[in-house]
Amino acid sequence: MRKRDFLATEDLGAEKFAAILELAARVKRGEVQGGLERKILAAAFMDPSLRTRTSMEAAMFLHGGHMIVLEPGKGSWSWETERGVVMEGTAVEHLIETSRVLARYADAIGVRVFPKGTEWVRERQDRVIKDFAAYSDKPVINLESARRHPCQGLADAMTLQEKLGNPKGKRFVLTWAWHPKPLPTAVPASAAIAAAQLGMEVVIARPEGYDLDPDDMAVIYQQAAAAGGRVTLANNMSDATVGADAVYVKSWGSLQYYGRPDEEKAHRAGLRDWRMTMAGTKATKAGKGIVMHCLPVRRNVEIDDAVLDGPNSVVVDQAENRLHVQRAMLLDLIGAK
Amino acid sequence: MRKRDFLATEDLGAEKFAAILELAARVKRGEVQGGLERKILAAAFMDPSLRTRTSMEAAMFLHGGHMIVLEPGKGSWSWETERGVVMEGTAVEHLIETSRVLARYADAIGVRVFPKGTEWVRERQDRVIKDFAAYSDKPVINLESARRHPCQGLADAMTLQEKLGNPKGKRFVLTWAWHPKPLPTAVPASAAIAAAQLGMEVVIARPEGYDLDPDDMAVIYQQAAAAGGRVTLANNMSDATVGADAVYVKSWGSLQYYGRPDEEKAHRAGLRDWRMTMAGTKATKAGKGIVMHCLPVRRNVEIDDAVLDGPNSVVVDQAENRLHVQRAMLLDLIGAK
Amino acid sequence: MRKRDFLATEDLGAEKFAAILELAARVKRGEVQGGLERKILAAAFMDPSLRTRTSMEAAMFLHGGHMIVLEPGKGSWSWETERGVVMEGTAVEHLIETSRVLARYADAIGVRVFPKGTEWVRERQDRVIKDFAAYSDKPVINLESARRHPCQGLADAMTLQEKLGNPKGKRFVLTWAWHPKPLPTAVPASAAIAAAQLGMEVVIARPEGYDLDPDDMAVIYQQAAAAGGRVTLANNMSDATVGADAVYVKSWGSLQYYGRPDEEKAHRAGLRDWRMTMAGTKATKAGKGIVMHCLPVRRNVEIDDAVLDGPNSVVVDQAENRLHVQRAMLLDLIGAK
Repeated sequence: MRKRDFLATEDLGAEKFAAILELAARVKRGEVQGGLERKILAAAFMDPSLRTRTSMEAAMFLHGGHMIVLEPGKGSWSWETERGVVMEGTAVEHLIETSRVLARYADAIGVRVFPKGTEWVRERQDRVIKDFAAYSDKPVINLESARRHPCQGLADAMTLQEKLGNPKGKRFVLTWAWHPKPLPTAVPASAAIAAAQLGMEVVIARPEGYDLDPDDMAVIYQQAAAAGGRVTLANNMSDATVGADAVYVKSWGSLQYYGRPDEEKAHRAGLRDWRMTMAGTKATKAGKGIVMHCLPVRRNVEIDDAVLDGPNSVVVDQAENRLHVQRAMLLDLIGAK
Repeated sequence: MRKRDFLATEDLGAEKFAAILELAARVKRGEVQGGLERKILAAAFMDPSLRTRTSMEAAMFLHGGHMIVLEPGKGSWSWETERGVVMEGTAVEHLIETSRVLARYADAIGVRVFPKGTEWVRERQDRVIKDFAAYSDKPVINLESARRHPCQGLADAMTLQEKLGNPKGKRFVLTWAWHPKPLPTAVPASAAIAAAQLGMEVVIARPEGYDLDPDDMAVIYQQAAAAGGRVTLANNMSDATVGADAVYVKSWGSLQYYGRPDEEKAHRAGLRDWRMTMAGTKATKAGKGIVMHCLPVRRNVEIDDAVLDGPNSVVVDQAENRLHVQRAMLLDLIGAK
Repeated sequence: MRKRDFLATEDLGAEKFAAILELAARVKRGEVQGGLERKILAAAFMDPSLRTRTSMEAAMFLHGGHMIVLEPGKGSWSWETERGVVMEGTAVEHLIETSRVLARYADAIGVRVFPKGTEWVRERQDRVIKDFAAYSDKPVINLESARRHPCQGLADAMTLQEKLGNPKGKRFVLTWAWHPKPLPTAVPASAAIAAAQLGMEVVIARPEGYDLDPDDMAVIYQQAAAAGGRVTLANNMSDATVGADAVYVKSWGSLQYYGRPDEEKAHRAGLRDWRMTMAGTKATKAGKGIVMHCLPVRRNVEIDDAVLDGPNSVVVDQAENRLHVQRAMLLDLIGAK
């Protein structure tokens, strides 16, 4: 049997997606003990992490396993990823060896590798995570790559189920927000895909120039169609949030200006009113729509204090659910059967 | 019931302070197994650590638990701690979110955060550790803050009990020592408080300009009064150590010159004879007074080689006791009841 | 009984060397469970590590123990190692205290400390690892020092046994390869010693100026003599590999030009043909000689893609065996008896 990876929630298929969320709910209720005894997850963090790192290490430990944290080069040293290259430069090891070797020590390999912000046409290929999966004969887990953050997507889906009951047909608004830096699109793409997989009415509100990658949009449309939901686009944050069951606030950088930070910044300058306020929150369905964010969040820049500290915010529950969905995913992927 | 934190030994009260030391002695004798199964301590180190890191991770493991080590930003990235601020600067996450989220993943949160050496009037508020305690609904453990190092204080107390029998009424001399840099006052304050809690005769010897914070002095006086001990000040290291049962050698920076390193350095320049020598050691009670230091120690700067490698030094036992008091404190704070 | 350390495979003696390899084979077959319950290895990495770090942490966990990873100063801060020095400089702690204290927290201490590349006459003394062993009263494990990498040596020996059956008398060629940087000699010395301990016919092929340290050569000759093997030198990579049962490709810096990187680089410039190619591989015994490397390897610089991805390469098995020999070594050194 071919080994499985966990690179994107849409790869799971509807049945497995639902099954993991169900298992996560059982895990959260304390109904599942053990299952990862003597199992090792080798997790390579090329980029900083608080939640992913802590929740993944906790997940392994709580079921009897262990996570080994690797921080190659603390960001400065990069694996060689090109095939056939004469390795005379700064990279001291090819990803081929790293993946093959870690697969001998561990039962699964986690990889976090952000895009570098220079050339989207290359970075959108998500080569590092895919090569790890190709060269490792153990499951590879995406801890956030250039294109996907599936652990976050699962946690988002679990939170939607918990807070909204059956989310099917309910209004999920993913809205862009202003931020001082152009952030990756992995989280917004993954959140919209997860909501689509739940059959929700997905609304994506973003300013001109902030469309998600067309391939990501295609996945969102496909998943919505398959799950009986639908997708619409909006150009205005405050209009879009009206009547929403859930508002997912998130900033991301313009792919149109990708790799040209000065132009991107100039374009972004007029968009500071894309900020989740108490007024926007009150405009949600019956004033009770939930406000989501993957964290870290910049207070009073992306979301106001009053919203984050008020009853609509579910951002901490969402972060907690990272732990539970990951426990379920790990049990499914490498747990004792 | 309100959750408890472990921020300072004086917060414990006399009974709990004694009980933890008693439990630590039992732990050291190998009489206590388990008790932290499936428990997680998330420990955030904003500053370097050898003993605290190793002994705390060992403590969790030895009783079946696990410590997750976080090093936010490796020193360069700092949490936002101000309320209500518009987060447009370098801080990417507010401490509010960090504390709330870690409390969902872990059974306790450890925080090490040193003062920055710029503005004592602000830093003496010890905001970061207190805010963590305020926003986390799980116990917060002080792994050394601007004002306190209670794990060290407990280890000091345990060592005094082991080496001196009942320390009550015995002469404990905390003496300043010269050092090339102005160090924080958390350790000397915590050591003097712990000695006061044991009812010892506490002598604090320091040069002009090196008084501890007045609030810390007030705590030392209060604890001594409550425990039947007393506190005196001395201006001279060699006089103070005469007849001492225990000499605690420690350098710290002048609060008077706080944030003005050049002036502090000039003031400090004439004080190189504040160094623990063999002569000073022989002047202790019957020449058998114990010499203590929290480590790391600068050899032949704070304490001479001959003293550190001789029979009076208990610095390694003191370091070992970090492990045992922390096992006791953790069992008390988050252990299975 | 004097505590044992694990600093070099030649210190083990023939019987213990064989016994650990036998235990490693049993461990690999899954015949040995547990044995390190409640045991702690404190591993201090002064230099980067992927395989050593991961395989050692995995080894401890798989038998019920735990490894605590320490990265003192992330490379920038160094322990004071001189005796009697007045510690006014940058070093904040003497290695004496570090070793003594870690020995109180852990059942064994691992240390990785590379040579600095400045002064071989000093660095060849391998002071740091030896001082750790001297001051710690718990076993010290060499995770690669200036002179030895015994965990690698054991893994090399295990791989030779696995792939060649009884390696005695078989042709083991250690060959220098070109590399953009002058690397340490710990690995080639340790590999040749291990092959000598197996009684192999050891051939060391290196260009002029690349002799190993004379003391290391003496150990290789002694071990070969004791085990019934022999040692010869060669000046040419392609001649030496002819008929080889095993070719161990490895680059190292010239000790003759040690500390003079520009001269070393100029000298090295003409040696780029010291590279393991498919032709060299086909020239091995019946074209089936195994190709070894400790990793990380620079593809198409030290060894060609076709060789690394072909059937002769055993580099990934070799890396895997790090795990098994370390499990055996740890069980032998600190395991429950």
